[in-house]
Amino acid sequence: MRKLYAIGIGAGDPEHLTVQAIDRLNRVDVFFVLDKGSAKADLVRLRQDILSRFVTRPGYRVVTATDPDRDRAPSDYRAAVADWHELRTDVYERLIRDSLGPDDTGAFLVWGDPSLYDSTIALIEAVLARGNVAFDYEVVPGVSSISALVARHRTTMNQIGRAVQLTTGRRLATGWPADADDVFVLLDAHTTFNQFTDQGLHIYWGAYVGTPDEILLSGPLDAALAARISAVRAEAREKHGWIMDTYLLRRPQR
Amino acid sequence: MRKLYAIGIGAGDPEHLTVQAIDRLNRVDVFFVLDKGSAKADLVRLRQDILSRFVTRPGYRVVTATDPDRDRAPSDYRAAVADWHELRTDVYERLIRDSLGPDDTGAFLVWGDPSLYDSTIALIEAVLARGNVAFDYEVVPGVSSISALVARHRTTMNQIGRAVQLTTGRRLATGWPADADDVFVLLDAHTTFNQFTDQGLHIYWGAYVGTPDEILLSGPLDAALAARISAVRAEAREKHGWIMDTYLLRRPQR
Ligand SMILES: C[S@@+](CC[C@H](N)C(=O)[O-])C[C@H]1O[C@@H](n2cnc3c(N)ncnc32)[C@H](O)[C@@H]1O
Ligand SMILES: C[S@@+](CC[C@H](N)C(=O)[O-])C[C@H]1O[C@@H](n2cnc3c(N)ncnc32)[C@H](O)[C@@H]1O
Repeated sequence: MRKLYAIGIGAGDPEHLTVQAIDRLNRVDVFFVLDKGSAKADLVRLRQDILSRFVTRPGYRVVTATDPDRDRAPSDYRAAVADWHELRTDVYERLIRDSLGPDDTGAFLVWGDPSLYDSTIALIEAVLARGNVAFDYEVVPGVSSISALVARHRTTMNQIGRAVQLTTGRRLATGWPADADDVFVLLDAHTTFNQFTDQGLHIYWGAYVGTPDEILLSGPLDAALAARISAVRAEAREKHGWIMDTYLLRRPQR
Repeated sequence: MRKLYAIGIGAGDPEHLTVQAIDRLNRVDVFFVLDKGSAKADLVRLRQDILSRFVTRPGYRVVTATDPDRDRAPSDYRAAVADWHELRTDVYERLIRDSLGPDDTGAFLVWGDPSLYDSTIALIEAVLARGNVAFDYEVVPGVSSISALVARHRTTMNQIGRAVQLTTGRRLATGWPADADDVFVLLDAHTTFNQFTDQGLHIYWGAYVGTPDEILLSGPLDAALAARISAVRAEAREKHGWIMDTYLLRRPQR
């Protein structure tokens, strides 16, 4: 039977790899690398660095494919997302069916922790659900970008006994989530923290966390700090051609 | 200058250790092991297993201390928690001051990810704030119990584009959190999921996740499944003398 791994590789620092991840990497015949366009070439490179550093078993293959891009301005958002999901499922199904022999083991290297705002698990499940190709699969957890962020800021996710929200920039733009005092924001292309200045919040922001390009900024979220982070972010994005950043907004208790 | 590490060791599986954690373990002169009473002896043992498996540098010391217990039925809850925090800060301060030479490196091995419902970082910060002993410190992120839980269930934390809440059993007992469709519950001694049966939720439950004693149960959260998890939990707790369990409650979208 074909075997598949979805392996969390940590959020930028190759040293985030776990013993379990390294063990699984060394059982893999075929690594699938999904290229999301030239802007993300750095991320593909990091995956290749991980392979050369940690895989000691010879003879593995790397199969690259292009992850179809989403229609960024669809007339029907819901249908566009569903279409995109089908297209991606096609790509994953083809990779598993055509690149893996009947007893081969394949792997997707997933950024951060595979469970957090990543579609690999859903796509593998969608391929399984179609029933055209049979395989067993395992998920290997990893260090997420938000764990890495708070570790670098030497703070915690939660305040004592309080709740934490994980959300997206798009959702945060609709307002502060109820029932949470600490809010992690991922996938925010619009510096949505600018909506929450001068409300007694504290921000812990980080870009390229865990990489040599890491930038960290934190403090009481007033207009000046929000402007500073926005400027630093714009400059870094310009310089690198892409950015990944995440932040924690904290409403301090007592 | 004294140096200190708070090292995330993963949530039960020694193979959750990261390359970074193993690197730091091998720079440590003194490991601090905080014993929380006999029921948790298994957890102390797992820490010792990690040291013997991953530390190759000879000559380290292990210093154990008793983490003061909290008054479980205080008349004034807030004051009792504050007192307890002071007592614990005393213990941590003494350990750092008395067991570390001026150029020594010490480490706390923290269960799961140090940022998630753990007080080590807050206690280290409290010791620093007192100013009686100077040191530098670093946090090493780890795989959390909730990452491990969803990996074992081969599901994600979030649904596409939706928010996730991390909370405690105590807080969940006050009602379903607003603005979140996926809710992780930690520190729940009272099987609070029983309050949420037959509401269209799905539960992913796990005890001793990542250990040889791991138990996983999942499904639509009806009264029968809630009763079954409660019974399995009570039996396991009886058998081992202690339990650690966590779960995800999912409100399926679309
Ligand atoms: C598609 S999500 C994947 C998250 C990933 N699975 C994880 O566990 O971190 C991508 C988002 O994660 C965040 N992110 C990932 N890696 C990051 C890093 N090294 N520094 C800052 N943010 C990061 C950013 O918010 C980015 O928009
Ligand atoms: C004090 S908190 C510490 C959490 C830890 N820092 C982490 O990242 O998982 C302890 C709670 O974590 C959860 N937990 C920790 N390890 C677990 C495991 N192996 N299986 C199930 N639950 C676990 C339980 O809910 C437990 O009550």
